[in-house]
Amino acid sequence: MATGVGEQRMSAKRCSLGLDYGTNSVRALIADVANGCELGAFVHNYRRGKDGILLDEKDHNVARQHPQDYLDGLVCAVKGAVKEAKKNHKNFDAADIIGIGVDTTGSTPMPVDKDGNPLCFHAEFKDDINAMAWLWKDHSSFAEAAEITEKARKFRPEYLAKCGGTYSSEWFFSKALHCARVAPKVFNAMASWVEYCDYIPAALTGDTNPARIKRGICAAGHKAMYCEQWGGLPDKQFLNAVDKRLAPLRAKLYDKAYTADVPAGALSADWAKKLGLRAGIAVSGGAFDAHMGAVGSGIKPGVLVKILGTSTCDMMVAPNTGKLADIPGLCGIVDGSILPGYYGLEAGQSAVGDIFNWFVQYFPPLQLLPGKDRGAASPVALHDALTRGAGALKPGESGLLALDWNNGNRTILVDPLLTGAVIGYTLHTTPAEVYRALIEGTAFGAGVICGRFEEYGVKVREVVNCGGIAEKNSLLMQIYADVLGRPMKIARSGQACALGAAIFGAVAAGESAGGHANCSQAQAAMCGLKSKVYEPIPENRKVYAELAKIYRDLHDAFGTRDAKANLSRVMKKLLRIKSEVRGLAG
Amino acid sequence: MATGVGEQRMSAKRCSLGLDYGTNSVRALIADVANGCELGAFVHNYRRGKDGILLDEKDHNVARQHPQDYLDGLVCAVKGAVKEAKKNHKNFDAADIIGIGVDTTGSTPMPVDKDGNPLCFHAEFKDDINAMAWLWKDHSSFAEAAEITEKARKFRPEYLAKCGGTYSSEWFFSKALHCARVAPKVFNAMASWVEYCDYIPAALTGDTNPARIKRGICAAGHKAMYCEQWGGLPDKQFLNAVDKRLAPLRAKLYDKAYTADVPAGALSADWAKKLGLRAGIAVSGGAFDAHMGAVGSGIKPGVLVKILGTSTCDMMVAPNTGKLADIPGLCGIVDGSILPGYYGLEAGQSAVGDIFNWFVQYFPPLQLLPGKDRGAASPVALHDALTRGAGALKPGESGLLALDWNNGNRTILVDPLLTGAVIGYTLHTTPAEVYRALIEGTAFGAGVICGRFEEYGVKVREVVNCGGIAEKNSLLMQIYADVLGRPMKIARSGQACALGAAIFGAVAAGESAGGHANCSQAQAAMCGLKSKVYEPIPENRKVYAELAKIYRDLHDAFGTRDAKANLSRVMKKLLRIKSEVRGLAG
Repeated sequence: MATGVGEQRMSAKRCSLGLDYGTNSVRALIADVANGCELGAFVHNYRRGKDGILLDEKDHNVARQHPQDYLDGLVCAVKGAVKEAKKNHKNFDAADIIGIGVDTTGSTPMPVDKDGNPLCFHAEFKDDINAMAWLWKDHSSFAEAAEITEKARKFRPEYLAKCGGTYSSEWFFSKALHCARVAPKVFNAMASWVEYCDYIPAALTGDTNPARIKRGICAAGHKAMYCEQWGGLPDKQFLNAVDKRLAPLRAKLYDKAYTADVPAGALSADWAKKLGLRAGIAVSGGAFDAHMGAVGSGIKPGVLVKILGTSTCDMMVAPNTGKLADIPGLCGIVDGSILPGYYGLEAGQSAVGDIFNWFVQYFPPLQLLPGKDRGAASPVALHDALTRGAGALKPGESGLLALDWNNGNRTILVDPLLTGAVIGYTLHTTPAEVYRALIEGTAFGAGVICGRFEEYGVKVREVVNCGGIAEKNSLLMQIYADVLGRPMKIARSGQACALGAAIFGAVAAGESAGGHANCSQAQAAMCGLKSKVYEPIPENRKVYAELAKIYRDLHDAFGTRDAKANLSRVMKKLLRIKSEVRGLAG
Repeated sequence: MATGVGEQRMSAKRCSLGLDYGTNSVRALIADVANGCELGAFVHNYRRGKDGILLDEKDHNVARQHPQDYLDGLVCAVKGAVKEAKKNHKNFDAADIIGIGVDTTGSTPMPVDKDGNPLCFHAEFKDDINAMAWLWKDHSSFAEAAEITEKARKFRPEYLAKCGGTYSSEWFFSKALHCARVAPKVFNAMASWVEYCDYIPAALTGDTNPARIKRGICAAGHKAMYCEQWGGLPDKQFLNAVDKRLAPLRAKLYDKAYTADVPAGALSADWAKKLGLRAGIAVSGGAFDAHMGAVGSGIKPGVLVKILGTSTCDMMVAPNTGKLADIPGLCGIVDGSILPGYYGLEAGQSAVGDIFNWFVQYFPPLQLLPGKDRGAASPVALHDALTRGAGALKPGESGLLALDWNNGNRTILVDPLLTGAVIGYTLHTTPAEVYRALIEGTAFGAGVICGRFEEYGVKVREVVNCGGIAEKNSLLMQIYADVLGRPMKIARSGQACALGAAIFGAVAAGESAGGHANCSQAQAAMCGLKSKVYEPIPENRKVYAELAKIYRDLHDAFGTRDAKANLSRVMKKLLRIKSEVRGLAG
């Protein structure tokens, strides 16, 4: 499908191609390297499985993808984007594309053969989902994650300090170990495991040999415990302590990981032909979608980039000069994972948009719609009805407070075994009040993350949001401005991840090829903000400051082991605030 | 309207009339004194105000009633019941009615003139709602209640020990004092204040002279701090300390209060004519509806009677021989307030049915209904749909836990400034799961009350339920059996309050007139249980025992000042129970 592309003017003859591999689709974006103008874009939805995901009826934790979908999608998306660019800009020529950048979901590793081809490309394993890509949201290795965490806590606590204190079932080694246990044939047949953010750039260069594939620091550092401080990946001894099947994998992996500005290589003649691009143009290293999205949103020191979607990613960078303390509860602190020369700091909320979607799907306030619309009410109509009602309320007016943990808490508690809560119901509480409380709950959760950065010396000077919610949900954006006490800005690009990838494509090409010398130069040229800024409203700010304290009391009482909670004032405070806001005496 | 009357056989020629004055209507019931057979009944809805209640647009706390509604309703209800009895039983004769019993809501006091007539019967005050009856649920005197509580805590702590530690805005002296302040003309014109449970019996005898009206121990003890231990009502000194306007009221009240078996007098010729009854038949003393409902449900030592409605009353009796400790958090402990010779113990939950009604009204799960039924879905259809879904769940399966405080907590926390809460939401939580959690929350609340009785030596050997929910909601009854770990029995009469009043009518008439010598003899003859009993199911019991502990942790953390709550295991425990119940490994 063709996607909306702004009517910015094309200003130069040099463009970069960003490839953004998401969970259900791949997007290609062609951007002008001089000004970020988005010339053409195209989204290809994966064909296999349910929305591109291969599931296992017997285990709801399983989520895999067929790498052929990645390659098929690549051709389709690039050709579509080129066609769009030509349609939109008469003087566009695909030969003007000087570089390619790639981001993908992750950790999404797959077992490969000695040439780096996915094992499932072999007839022997063609229907074996264990020989395919293990999608980031695959949780089948939860037991292995717990074992790795336990062993690291005991023998290598430093490994955990960089990833929030808990190794996740979503990550590289958990998945590889689970494969070793449930599919030994696959595990024994593989020559290496490769993240697909590393595989795609390598494939484009025509050389996927596992020994030569440049592994990205982003996946390595955030998901595979790679850190130069301890010489790269976890050592063999440690892996052996976890499970002796894991130890031999160490030699099949890599010793060095690279930032994404380091080119993976040059586009092969074969792929150039398939895609209709010039052979030999630079292909950047790969990284995760959110990280390149942060770059596309203009991340730099002092700027918190929030990618607001079904869940969130909250990212910052800090100079890698001097010592940055480990920040408890952050998903990751990795040198160069977002921008070269800076620590990349990743935090996030496990559910944001998902919470609102849950409420609308399971508690559809059909009664707010005209009778005739109730039979086949669309989620959008229901969100709109709730937003109207919630928007008419003042902060604190409902007397409600929600904990936004319906999908656990990623930052700062790093605990999937937490759940959502709503406190303050009366016999008059309305769906719109609950909806607003849910939005506010996610805002308070965002505030805790923001506070955690600052507590450890990473000052938040500016907040830039991107993602669908940032562009569409002005009620939420105003609440976030009021709760965080900061203007909420929005990245200019509606496809910030793909733009970030295009930025890396331009940097990989380099100045000599008409690209950019480095990321900051590329960002300065290609990134921007929308003119709309949500400014904090002082009177809302005041009420939310009070509510945020109550949220924190609940957060600590339910979420931390040592909290000595006295919650006996919680409901009374909420009722008092409610009375004050409503202007009642009693 | 005529009400359903069972097809029991009339067995004797002696009947008693029970008058049950509720919040919106008055019910008359004619019952056979030999076997409790309900011969005829009729309900009259009050004509004035909104559903019989006069409101004040400017103050949502105000709720008054016009006493003329009581008198008009009396005639209408009695005539209707007689007509019904004649229709149902050919040999019925109104002359067979040997006694009348009366219960009303309360505390619902009204200012009266020197003859005991409500002040609003005078032209001067005819439109003044302050000269009418101050309905039990009128909360306009919340400030006065706080002052009385404060002064009693300081000077007369023993007063509070009998009424749960807090004097309520719903009670006698709060209302009288508020009247003194906001309507001094009314206050100065009154000769006394009379509860309408005392006024109606007096009116039926033709003598409402305030000095001679027999005041019932039920209203006096539970709402006006009357206790023989300190010589009756609060002393003048104390009232003076609260507000000097209150002190002169003391002399206009009474020195002695009576149990309801002591007749108020004999039916006057005037009223006999109006009602079509024999003049001179006995009229019992009055008491509150719930208390007489407990009697009609067969209350005796060891039996907990639960009146399940929009809120609940939980009542027990304990022998008044020996010393019963004050029981913290009980609404009242009053000698003779339910049965003569026993302490009447009153507890209750501020909202039960109201919570389910709120959920259905504000969060109607219209999506559970066929499309064509969504436009004008009835609350009954929605309750049914939710009940079906909730009934298909196992205890603990939802991972949810609710605090049932949407309308505050009456027992054991005695705190209106508490609110409802639901803990344990995921992204898959359904309305039926929430609905079941709300029912379970009220069950855990009921368990806390039951436990409080037993902690203070009042053993609960049997639980008898009455009220609409007990008869109609088998899911709730089973959950209550499982949570309380006791069989849930149901009173045979569907109009237990009116039957209780009829029992007192039969006792007031006495054995010589063909009635009963005392309450226990009357109860033995006239009360019974339905054959349906809900037995606890052992495997449900086990899960609920675990959940009840978690409920208690939350209850204490949010509800008590000194609790040192560690709630960090709450969500994890709920998730573990959920997994176990669903039979999942992870």
